[in-house]
Amino acid sequence: MSEFDLEGWTCPAPLRNQPNIVMGHGGGGRLSGELIENVFVPAFAGTQLASVLSQLGDAAVFDLGGARLAFSTDSFVVRPRVFPGGNIGDLAINGTINDVAMSGASPIAISVGVILEEGLAIEELGRIAAAMGVAARKAGVSIVTGDTKVVDRGHGDGIYINTSGVGLVPAGCDLGPHRVRPGDSIIVSGPIGMHGIAIMSVREGLEFGSDIRSDSAPLNGIVSNMIASGADIHMMRDPTRGGVAATLNEIALASGTGIEIIEHAVPVDEDVRAACGFLGLDPMCVANEGKLVAFVAADSCEALLDVMQRHPYGRGATSIGTVVEAHPGVVVAKTAIGGTRVVDFALAEQLPRIC
Amino acid sequence: MSEFDLEGWTCPAPLRNQPNIVMGHGGGGRLSGELIENVFVPAFAGTQLASVLSQLGDAAVFDLGGARLAFSTDSFVVRPRVFPGGNIGDLAINGTINDVAMSGASPIAISVGVILEEGLAIEELGRIAAAMGVAARKAGVSIVTGDTKVVDRGHGDGIYINTSGVGLVPAGCDLGPHRVRPGDSIIVSGPIGMHGIAIMSVREGLEFGSDIRSDSAPLNGIVSNMIASGADIHMMRDPTRGGVAATLNEIALASGTGIEIIEHAVPVDEDVRAACGFLGLDPMCVANEGKLVAFVAADSCEALLDVMQRHPYGRGATSIGTVVEAHPGVVVAKTAIGGTRVVDFALAEQLPRIC
Repeated sequence: MSEFDLEGWTCPAPLRNQPNIVMGHGGGGRLSGELIENVFVPAFAGTQLASVLSQLGDAAVFDLGGARLAFSTDSFVVRPRVFPGGNIGDLAINGTINDVAMSGASPIAISVGVILEEGLAIEELGRIAAAMGVAARKAGVSIVTGDTKVVDRGHGDGIYINTSGVGLVPAGCDLGPHRVRPGDSIIVSGPIGMHGIAIMSVREGLEFGSDIRSDSAPLNGIVSNMIASGADIHMMRDPTRGGVAATLNEIALASGTGIEIIEHAVPVDEDVRAACGFLGLDPMCVANEGKLVAFVAADSCEALLDVMQRHPYGRGATSIGTVVEAHPGVVVAKTAIGGTRVVDFALAEQLPRIC
Repeated sequence: MSEFDLEGWTCPAPLRNQPNIVMGHGGGGRLSGELIENVFVPAFAGTQLASVLSQLGDAAVFDLGGARLAFSTDSFVVRPRVFPGGNIGDLAINGTINDVAMSGASPIAISVGVILEEGLAIEELGRIAAAMGVAARKAGVSIVTGDTKVVDRGHGDGIYINTSGVGLVPAGCDLGPHRVRPGDSIIVSGPIGMHGIAIMSVREGLEFGSDIRSDSAPLNGIVSNMIASGADIHMMRDPTRGGVAATLNEIALASGTGIEIIEHAVPVDEDVRAACGFLGLDPMCVANEGKLVAFVAADSCEALLDVMQRHPYGRGATSIGTVVEAHPGVVVAKTAIGGTRVVDFALAEQLPRIC
């Protein structure tokens, strides 16, 4: 280590006086954001494409050899590994497809790195791998490279999967918080909270009877239709960990705008609403794995909704609010009884290891 | 799962009658190869770029938007996390840089996905992240995107890191086993076995006094010089898990040629040789993290050695053998006393979690 001179490294912020990693650091909420800002961003600064890191998008977008690429990575540690509507394998493929697609790119190639725990049944691994293959073929992307590591029993949880993806950004497509402006309409592609509730319904110690299935799905097809429609889309994001609330807060902060949501316009299935009720959760904070939030110029909104509603993964697309000049960085919801509440993101996650 | 119809999935081969994952499945030896061939390759077949997967190289090479890309992924689970000559952070950066570089590509952008175990000291995470930043800047590549997950205590080992990398393959550069042919000279870039022995020297329960440091280093600089030299290079590979023996066996099998090594020409430092002696190991089977093996047309060999020896990471470059027509798929070593022995790859790894 001598050549690196890391002896003098000190944590630039006390991370809420927490000296050790806690589950909430992986929850996609405030603690996750602080860990990234305080540890990773300064550590990784100063390289040629470092500006890309500060995009803080689901995927990094940069030019390489004449192509405009989107590149994203995601690790999957979901528990249990099989849940209503999917398993860790198809979730891992869909998750990275969606992260790449949110930049407007067509995902093309995916890598798969697995960390297996000693003792995992090879038959289960086979089922998970088969599900990954099915998901990739269904979405029209290719798994092109991989890596397998094994850790000793008691140092993993059956299987953890990392997928990374590379996609091609269409000419002229430039999405991101820098394009979000007051007046934009905000669309969500369908009912929210299904993935998180599906996981909770089968999580050990928490099981409850439910027909709720994860919405895990590849969004590259609907995104491709949205881009091709010519609608003036400014930004997209898939609201996974932390739910729609975290996504909207991140975008409000990154764009320096305010966001105003019409609470009763946010689509939530009745059984998800009921489950959230007895679990004491806000559906806005529950994870999704097959939904997207789009910011679009107001005069393109109706046309874009029409395009989305004609796609199987966008049938429930609806406009849920507007970008405003007031209260920059803050998300508020207009409630049914005419009030206004601040929609904050959770400090941590309501349930860890949801993806 | 119903829509996937995976119920009928059966493991196509008994994997040596082993129904569960064992440490050896991650060792880069025969068991790893069987797992990939029997589980992942059939599961992932049938997508557009599937032919790329069968390249079985360190990186997948394919065209995208007019650019010729190399794309690779690697997860790092090394124990201990800090070892003589490096730590899991710089190892993770160098490892993926090298996998991309072995295709002849210039690595440009790297992703970092971390799986943190609850309880890891944030100060240690900071040191590891700082080491990753230093390694990336030293190699001139950029960390452009990342992901953080946290698993509960007892389901990880402090930190596991996945890095994936994207690079640009120079025009006209086409390396791989399909280009290896009888008569090719085989070069190794320096003394072997240092990474594996460095890890062993500090592994709990195995510690022994030693000054041996890991050779962990980024090889993109020396590869760039090698490609620019115009030498007729046919293939490169970095001999990590399984060591030079595994690399040569894989290439012999993939190219359908025989390989003949001059045993006493293989560079091994005296202290590595001594450690291998008392540990009962073959240095040819011990992992390296900053070495490469190159197959080059015989008439380019001397010029290429000269280029390599002028680079800090190639000062010990030397020719160690030749590709032959005889015994296709088999690697043999000519011993100092005039005999010949078969150099097989290990069934599994001599020491697991070496990278």
